[in-house]
Amino acid sequence: MYDLAGVDDFRFSPHCWVTQLALAHKGLSVEVVPKKFSEIGSIGDGNFKLVPVINDDGTWVSDSWEIASYLEKTYNQEPSLFGERSDSALTAFARNWSLCTLIPGIASLILLDVFEHVDPVDREYFRTSREKLFRRTLEQVQSGREERVDAFRRALHPLRMTLRDQSFVCGESPAYADYQLFGPFMWARNTSTFELLESGDPIMGWIQRCLDLFDGLARTSRPAD
Amino acid sequence: MYDLAGVDDFRFSPHCWVTQLALAHKGLSVEVVPKKFSEIGSIGDGNFKLVPVINDDGTWVSDSWEIASYLEKTYNQEPSLFGERSDSALTAFARNWSLCTLIPGIASLILLDVFEHVDPVDREYFRTSREKLFRRTLEQVQSGREERVDAFRRALHPLRMTLRDQSFVCGESPAYADYQLFGPFMWARNTSTFELLESGDPIMGWIQRCLDLFDGLARTSRPAD
Repeated sequence: MYDLAGVDDFRFSPHCWVTQLALAHKGLSVEVVPKKFSEIGSIGDGNFKLVPVINDDGTWVSDSWEIASYLEKTYNQEPSLFGERSDSALTAFARNWSLCTLIPGIASLILLDVFEHVDPVDREYFRTSREKLFRRTLEQVQSGREERVDAFRRALHPLRMTLRDQSFVCGESPAYADYQLFGPFMWARNTSTFELLESGDPIMGWIQRCLDLFDGLARTSRPAD
Repeated sequence: MYDLAGVDDFRFSPHCWVTQLALAHKGLSVEVVPKKFSEIGSIGDGNFKLVPVINDDGTWVSDSWEIASYLEKTYNQEPSLFGERSDSALTAFARNWSLCTLIPGIASLILLDVFEHVDPVDREYFRTSREKLFRRTLEQVQSGREERVDAFRRALHPLRMTLRDQSFVCGESPAYADYQLFGPFMWARNTSTFELLESGDPIMGWIQRCLDLFDGLARTSRPAD
């Protein structure tokens, strides 16, 4: 699996974290190959624009959602990422909430911190592409975050209410929707010391449980200084 | 099943619609008994504060989520509302999004229209309780909705993206998460002519498919004038 690497080999890509956990869920042994943004073009046939990308004995798959579908189909004897067919469909709703609400919300609070963990050779690319996306400078995106964090926390209420009643989004044990929603928190953990959540938030307990999964796979990665 | 009835027997309660569809999903024949807000205290032993309430041959259950769990357990030979255990857990996430984002969003656009479909004897109760909840008058809650509807539509993006790729939230066929998210749109349909969605929105196609379910169960109810 090709992972995104920042300065000093920090691993922070939310989508790569989703895929790493999905591979661990399937019990597959994986070689994780770090790539800077500027090195993604050297993966495989040179046509990949984004990580994660996996090479499974010669089969190349990119995009975390495509990879999840591929793993579920190919390794159908291993624990299911989705459970029943309708569960995969519902996972799509959780994924879309992650993409539309969670990731943009976290980005608006830590994007400049992420920038500071990007490898120096990638910083111009990162700044240009993200400023185009957000139509503001990185400094503007992140500024005033202390005033905006309450609104972000309120927007997480659907997740919070769910985790008040159950250990994981997928029930008593985790599955893909958990990884999909946890990946963005790893992005923050490994780039920023800004406190996204209040202490005592049920989401924090779930983050701890996710950090413990697979022998502490995510916990042992390097957090923000 | 005890349902909420407004003026001229309008049926608009989002939670009651969720339960009606869940009962239909299980293929159960149901007598639907209309109750005004002011009549809820006369149901059963008089301790119910909210509908829906069901009386299943002497077993009383209230709260749409409790009713869904009861039906799934009791009628386990009928089509499942949730599928696998983890699917019920994921349904909880969809439900919490409905409660935290969808219902308050729709309320902020149509609450005065709902009031006008409440039976006259219930209007003082409705106004007092809702104004306490929203900390504003009903008129203030709804005012300026033309300027606010775009933000509401953007907040539905997780649902929209999901329905671009699949017919129902639960996949190729509907299940409880669909009913949970469709109920609030029935609340709007049966009280308001305000256009919550733009034409061409994938959510509209899904609403039409939900209206068709169970021989048009929801479609045949009376829409807003």
